[in-house]
Amino acid sequence: MSDVNAVLALAAAQREASRTRWFELLRIPSVSAQPPHAPDCRRAAEWVRAQLAEIGFTAQVRETAGHPVVVAHHPGPTGTGPHLLFYGHYDVQPPEPLDLWTSPPFEPVVTDGPNGPRVVARGAVDDKGQTMTWLEALRFWHQAAGGPPCRVSVLVEGEEEIGSRNLPDFLEAHADELRADVAVVSDTNMWDVATPAISTRLRGMLYTQVDITAANRDLHSGLFGGSALNPINLLTRILGDLRDEAGEILIPGFYDDVPELPDTLRRQWESLNFDEAAFLAGVGLSVPAGEIGRSALERLWARPTADVNGIWGGYAGEGSKTVIPSQAHAKVSFRLVPGQSPAKVLAGFRDFIVARLPDDAQVKIQVFSMSEGIEVPADSAWVAAAAPALEAVFGRAPVLMGCGGSIPVVSSMKAILGMDSLLVGFGLEDDQVHSPNEKFDVSCFERGIDSHIRMLDALSRVRIG
Amino acid sequence: MSDVNAVLALAAAQREASRTRWFELLRIPSVSAQPPHAPDCRRAAEWVRAQLAEIGFTAQVRETAGHPVVVAHHPGPTGTGPHLLFYGHYDVQPPEPLDLWTSPPFEPVVTDGPNGPRVVARGAVDDKGQTMTWLEALRFWHQAAGGPPCRVSVLVEGEEEIGSRNLPDFLEAHADELRADVAVVSDTNMWDVATPAISTRLRGMLYTQVDITAANRDLHSGLFGGSALNPINLLTRILGDLRDEAGEILIPGFYDDVPELPDTLRRQWESLNFDEAAFLAGVGLSVPAGEIGRSALERLWARPTADVNGIWGGYAGEGSKTVIPSQAHAKVSFRLVPGQSPAKVLAGFRDFIVARLPDDAQVKIQVFSMSEGIEVPADSAWVAAAAPALEAVFGRAPVLMGCGGSIPVVSSMKAILGMDSLLVGFGLEDDQVHSPNEKFDVSCFERGIDSHIRMLDALSRVRIG
Repeated sequence: MSDVNAVLALAAAQREASRTRWFELLRIPSVSAQPPHAPDCRRAAEWVRAQLAEIGFTAQVRETAGHPVVVAHHPGPTGTGPHLLFYGHYDVQPPEPLDLWTSPPFEPVVTDGPNGPRVVARGAVDDKGQTMTWLEALRFWHQAAGGPPCRVSVLVEGEEEIGSRNLPDFLEAHADELRADVAVVSDTNMWDVATPAISTRLRGMLYTQVDITAANRDLHSGLFGGSALNPINLLTRILGDLRDEAGEILIPGFYDDVPELPDTLRRQWESLNFDEAAFLAGVGLSVPAGEIGRSALERLWARPTADVNGIWGGYAGEGSKTVIPSQAHAKVSFRLVPGQSPAKVLAGFRDFIVARLPDDAQVKIQVFSMSEGIEVPADSAWVAAAAPALEAVFGRAPVLMGCGGSIPVVSSMKAILGMDSLLVGFGLEDDQVHSPNEKFDVSCFERGIDSHIRMLDALSRVRIG
Repeated sequence: MSDVNAVLALAAAQREASRTRWFELLRIPSVSAQPPHAPDCRRAAEWVRAQLAEIGFTAQVRETAGHPVVVAHHPGPTGTGPHLLFYGHYDVQPPEPLDLWTSPPFEPVVTDGPNGPRVVARGAVDDKGQTMTWLEALRFWHQAAGGPPCRVSVLVEGEEEIGSRNLPDFLEAHADELRADVAVVSDTNMWDVATPAISTRLRGMLYTQVDITAANRDLHSGLFGGSALNPINLLTRILGDLRDEAGEILIPGFYDDVPELPDTLRRQWESLNFDEAAFLAGVGLSVPAGEIGRSALERLWARPTADVNGIWGGYAGEGSKTVIPSQAHAKVSFRLVPGQSPAKVLAGFRDFIVARLPDDAQVKIQVFSMSEGIEVPADSAWVAAAAPALEAVFGRAPVLMGCGGSIPVVSSMKAILGMDSLLVGFGLEDDQVHSPNEKFDVSCFERGIDSHIRMLDALSRVRIG
């Protein structure tokens, strides 16, 4: 039996143990956005470190200005194979609103779904479940073959869900240690439950909070209404102006650096026959809400967006309170495409707000995340090696697709370490990522492990120039 | 010594006792909008009932579909004087946001202010403090003169801050019992700390909650942004359209029934020389935000408004969460002027929203309050009697003014019982009504008691046609 078949056989025999380890990680409420969970983030980092130490890696929890990073190295067999860097994140999105969960978010449960059993928990897929697919693959390579088939480094961060804000500094400070031939990232989706995918395009992101202040205290709307500035009225006016009826974003210059989709890519995406009606029906919608006149995949993968992710101000309790509040707030984010500069978009957004601000209002704009959209080469040796490995597991060739989401570290690794990424993920559209009742199909998890076992073998054979 | 002078002398000798009783009522957190405080509302009603029973009234706590109402009667001396109905409310606004209070909202404290000592607490003035001014006046009439100088009934409700929603039914059911010659209401302001006022105009109100639902769950903005409808974007678009840059409300037909101000009233209000710059400076503002081209008092007293009193949806925690939420919500209220129908405004607002609603969005509009704006006759016998009584206390004639706020019961008493109201209140502009650190100047409280003592005497002498 070849090494890879022995590793696959061991993985197949150890499904229960893999699930047990996955559940251990899911039980740690490592919500990076919420300061009270900082100790849980550290606990998750320590848990990942211990896993890596168990399977022959030199593994450390390293400090940053925020949540710590796990870094680990394995020399692999002596020889001339490539050096792979596996990237993942142990932090998760806040679980709120809690009342919409059918089970506690940090107590994983197995339920039945159309594709067989699934695991429901915050982080089930994003990104604890996905991280576990390659961590388990590395474990079985260790147990069945004494270690990975090439040199492997690991980087697992704890701030992906809050924009990886301290990671660029960390990459710069440890560039020589972390630079490898390619980064392997599992934080994206498959095309569908039967068809694997390699993502070659990711949107970037600018995530802001807008705080508007008017009067120095809350006012009575009877005594002051008609005279005093209402910051919620103002905020809705500004944000209501962001897009026109056709879905176009109205910040001057916003589209200056947005390239039209190349015809080859347009044709390739058309050939995928994406069913937007079914995609929307899955969440109770029927009418596409983006720019009119563009295809669904273009809008999702190659066009920028402006979304208000949260808004609050004034009275939100039961019944009525006749208040003109002092402040109003919103979280506003932009998905960006390759070519757009997050800094330039931020400057345009700031000007857009200031142009609508009366003398009596003050605005503060906080930035929580800035990353550029990226494209990774679809014709690289890495993609060429990974594709047949995926086909061997799924019985179908992978689709080369875009992704509407953002993985800031991918652009950082390109900019700071000069490395491309190979983006192979095992999520599905209906995984309810960032929503209540996030889930990961057990079949996706297990085929993810097998895919990484085979990809490790295939990638280890790539000849480095 | 005449009766009235004996009563005034007793009140002057009993300032501490008056304050003690006022504080007892302030310590009851009777927040009508918040269901957990329902028992506190009942406790406040019971407290008011007991006060009235102590001073010779037949007093009862009566049930409604919501918080109870206190009703009390005193026959007065036999004779032919008028029958007065004193109205007040024992409920208060929610105290939130709690962190802006300098002392606990339901533990009254005396602090120093520019007009001498003041009492800080939720309800200090609105309307517990104001209600106590006439309750204390009635107490001293009882103690010094054996009872009020004419027949008096009392109505103290517990739902004024939530739109007096069950009061109209109560008035209809008990119309014969409650109908008097005039209602005396203390829930308005003085002109300034040295100048009393009689209010002859109140704005009405329509208070709504708008709930917009799009997808059937929260979505990931990367995976769905560009395809799925964002209900917050939609809500800001709708509410941002409510007013134009000149402050005009854009609901079709909104101004159809808004009369232009009569020249006599315009000239009278101009003669008051209202200092809007100082009014706004007191709350940290400098630029009037209402309709351009109208005077401050016209905008505050005789023009309608559209204010968003609260807004919420999506993620409002620290940092970022890349969610497209399923729902977005706002509290939206309209101050109305005499002539406007709240039902017609509601219909127009509903049409305005529906016209902007894409197929994938559902809207629910809840109504928490509907009342018409009202005018009370400025040339009545009641005003003629009250004015010199106020002048005797303050050394200045009262100003006849409008009020931008709403007291729904005043229109209900007119419509259901056929009664006019005499609106004499002792609040000041800087009382922070409905805001953190609500206060009532002790001098206003005490002169309010003396004013009601003198007004009881003066009103008891009015000859009924």
